[in-house]
Amino acid sequence: MKLSEIAQLIGAQFTGDDKEITSMNTLSEANATEISFVANAKYIKEIPSSNAGAIICDVKALEKIPSTCTALVVDAPYWQMAVLTAKFAPTLEDINSAKASIGEGSIVSSRAEVANGASIGKNCNIMAGVYIGSNAIVGDNTTLYPNVVLYRDCRVGSSCVIHAGTVIGSDGFGFASDKMGIHKKIYHLGNVVIEDDVEIGSNSSIDRAVFSSTYVKRGARLDNLVHVAHNCEIGEYSVIAGQTGLAGSSKLGRSSVFGAQSGVAGHLEIAPFNTFAARTGVTKTIKESGKIFAGFPFMDHRAWLKIQGKLARLIK
Amino acid sequence: MKLSEIAQLIGAQFTGDDKEITSMNTLSEANATEISFVANAKYIKEIPSSNAGAIICDVKALEKIPSTCTALVVDAPYWQMAVLTAKFAPTLEDINSAKASIGEGSIVSSRAEVANGASIGKNCNIMAGVYIGSNAIVGDNTTLYPNVVLYRDCRVGSSCVIHAGTVIGSDGFGFASDKMGIHKKIYHLGNVVIEDDVEIGSNSSIDRAVFSSTYVKRGARLDNLVHVAHNCEIGEYSVIAGQTGLAGSSKLGRSSVFGAQSGVAGHLEIAPFNTFAARTGVTKTIKESGKIFAGFPFMDHRAWLKIQGKLARLIK
Amino acid sequence: MKLSEIAQLIGAQFTGDDKEITSMNTLSEANATEISFVANAKYIKEIPSSNAGAIICDVKALEKIPSTCTALVVDAPYWQMAVLTAKFAPTLEDINSAKASIGEGSIVSSRAEVANGASIGKNCNIMAGVYIGSNAIVGDNTTLYPNVVLYRDCRVGSSCVIHAGTVIGSDGFGFASDKMGIHKKIYHLGNVVIEDDVEIGSNSSIDRAVFSSTYVKRGARLDNLVHVAHNCEIGEYSVIAGQTGLAGSSKLGRSSVFGAQSGVAGHLEIAPFNTFAARTGVTKTIKESGKIFAGFPFMDHRAWLKIQGKLARLIK
Repeated sequence: MKLSEIAQLIGAQFTGDDKEITSMNTLSEANATEISFVANAKYIKEIPSSNAGAIICDVKALEKIPSTCTALVVDAPYWQMAVLTAKFAPTLEDINSAKASIGEGSIVSSRAEVANGASIGKNCNIMAGVYIGSNAIVGDNTTLYPNVVLYRDCRVGSSCVIHAGTVIGSDGFGFASDKMGIHKKIYHLGNVVIEDDVEIGSNSSIDRAVFSSTYVKRGARLDNLVHVAHNCEIGEYSVIAGQTGLAGSSKLGRSSVFGAQSGVAGHLEIAPFNTFAARTGVTKTIKESGKIFAGFPFMDHRAWLKIQGKLARLIK
Repeated sequence: MKLSEIAQLIGAQFTGDDKEITSMNTLSEANATEISFVANAKYIKEIPSSNAGAIICDVKALEKIPSTCTALVVDAPYWQMAVLTAKFAPTLEDINSAKASIGEGSIVSSRAEVANGASIGKNCNIMAGVYIGSNAIVGDNTTLYPNVVLYRDCRVGSSCVIHAGTVIGSDGFGFASDKMGIHKKIYHLGNVVIEDDVEIGSNSSIDRAVFSSTYVKRGARLDNLVHVAHNCEIGEYSVIAGQTGLAGSSKLGRSSVFGAQSGVAGHLEIAPFNTFAARTGVTKTIKESGKIFAGFPFMDHRAWLKIQGKLARLIK
Repeated sequence: MKLSEIAQLIGAQFTGDDKEITSMNTLSEANATEISFVANAKYIKEIPSSNAGAIICDVKALEKIPSTCTALVVDAPYWQMAVLTAKFAPTLEDINSAKASIGEGSIVSSRAEVANGASIGKNCNIMAGVYIGSNAIVGDNTTLYPNVVLYRDCRVGSSCVIHAGTVIGSDGFGFASDKMGIHKKIYHLGNVVIEDDVEIGSNSSIDRAVFSSTYVKRGARLDNLVHVAHNCEIGEYSVIAGQTGLAGSSKLGRSSVFGAQSGVAGHLEIAPFNTFAARTGVTKTIKESGKIFAGFPFMDHRAWLKIQGKLARLIK
């Protein structure tokens, strides 16, 4: 899409040399052919080090935009970014891509749908009612139980087991809102990457990233009805018990262990090798390792036990 | 069904002019050809203003039934109402209805099932594994991702996006129970109405109404694994984050915003423009607007923060 | 599988008479042709009364193994047990079994998959997108709504209603972990048994047992998005509201009533006829009946109300 067309779409002034913009990305990951955006004052400091070819911003951020980058100035950068995602979103299926490739020894149910451009490794079992979207990739020796949905462009590694009804790659819960509270959908241009040797229970939901990827790393174990929001990272060998939910962009270190019905707020980083009792609600970044936490808001597990004891005495 | 047959089915005395009863409904919504019921003393006051053609009640409510309405007196009105719902429940599919109509420009996967009597608007995408029941209606420009289930008689508006595995229109959690704790299913005769421009995440469940409709109003956003019970109303432009659950018959005003893993008890009314932090448990009707709540039982968000501070000091 | 082959697989010494081992089981349920394991000192006391033909154990448990039973001594019995489950796990489908039998009057959608060896009773409705695995059994007059998944060897009784997207029989959340935190999958050799007259809402997940069965007993009612872990038992006529989760091996007595978003920790026994308010978290076995509980950790409902009152006064 031409930069001039983008400017027109979002109502920005545009003068200067036109160029082709291939995609959208964050300030830190965008390259010279990509457009990024600044919608929050706290990201202004990332502008100088961004390689983005163009940036959607408001007038306050304008002076920070380097001369090598084109600024598209609008009143509501987040809303206009959302508007633009619709233009970069791929079609639901790439009907003109090559027929899916299926590796030797793989059994694909005649009732499974494997879209054009997808690729399935060797010795997989793709059971009835499974949907594998365009350009999705499944490694070797992986089983997708009935009615698993793998959205387009997402990846599942080798030796994975995904139980029935689990959805990988649905759009995250992202939208811009105006002053009247009306929402504009953010199309999610990223994907989900499930690494090797991961098992996920039934009816879990793992959302694709807005840009780049949501990750479930090697050897992780997720239970049933788990919610993983866009742009999360679940560290290697982590264990996430049933009905736990992770809000957007949170990153769990290796071997994080969460009891059932736990929750993690958005944009947090959790150091490796921590354990969280059932129903813990993590509200802050955690930098130490090897701890056990509980409660909501979360605290050291022993502190939580102490509070429960105090409360019990309170009523006597 | 003849009133005399209904009387016989539920073991009520019946004398007088017989008439055809077309359906069941609540006291306030029933018309002269419909039968209603009173199973709880608090609804007796609604009897005089009801237009119902007949009412199932016990002997205590009998004297309030106006002469224009036929009373069917039984020992256990709620149980007998449940018995009767089975007779008014439609068949699972209307196999004799006309073939579904599909609007111009819509792409319906050959692996989707669209039952007779259903209607799909223009430029929709109905992906593999989707089920659309009899007489269900989908507006224009709407996408149903793989394995979405839209039960019969339910409606999804225009420009909606429903992500994979979401179920719209399952029977609500309703049954009558006898003194031994044995349950009698209440067939749900109502439907779900999703208005225009709504997006719902993956693996969410929205139950149909017992009678009339469960509503998700224009512009609302629901995340993954959200539970909406029978007869709820979600106001326009509301935002319901992941793993939140709404119990039966609760009504959320416009632009209600719920953080993840929140809950709302049944039969509440929540005024517009309130915000609820993650894990809030709403236990009472809310009449003010523009507030932020947190905690369970819920309270003002600042009060909740204060309590957490006090508890933290308690253990020092 | 020969005992000598098992010994070789798991790295145990083996001398003496070889024999055929047909399956794996717990100490208390294993018979003379089955192999069991002791991975936790607290189960050593169960060894003398076990009828297992062989037991995987470490050197500490060795002296308790009776002479009638073969001991296979390894360093990590739980890990080796997990290794062995892969060998006893059945294939995903029994393609050589007889074609499924469908009872008179049953309607099976042409879009449903019924694997070889399955059996469906009379007058059932098996709707589009349903998957019924090998040797699974469905009773009479049962409805499976679209996209229900019934894994192989699982059973659903007569007069049941299972709503769309619910998964019955996925592997439980079970694995052995080594000192590096790497996990070894435990294949689940048991099944799920849903007795007669049970209704389950949409998008719920009920895991199969490791060995033997997970039970949902006669007349129980489960709502949407409920998580039932491996080896649980839900008592007759119990009521489990939306988004509740039960951890592994917990047993609920008859007529247990759980409000929404409740949870039960693993390996608990709950006496019959208790009621749990919404969001109760049960952390201990309950031996009394007829009580109402609330809170997390759970307590008497009145005590919970009292604590909430105290907390409210705390901030004034």
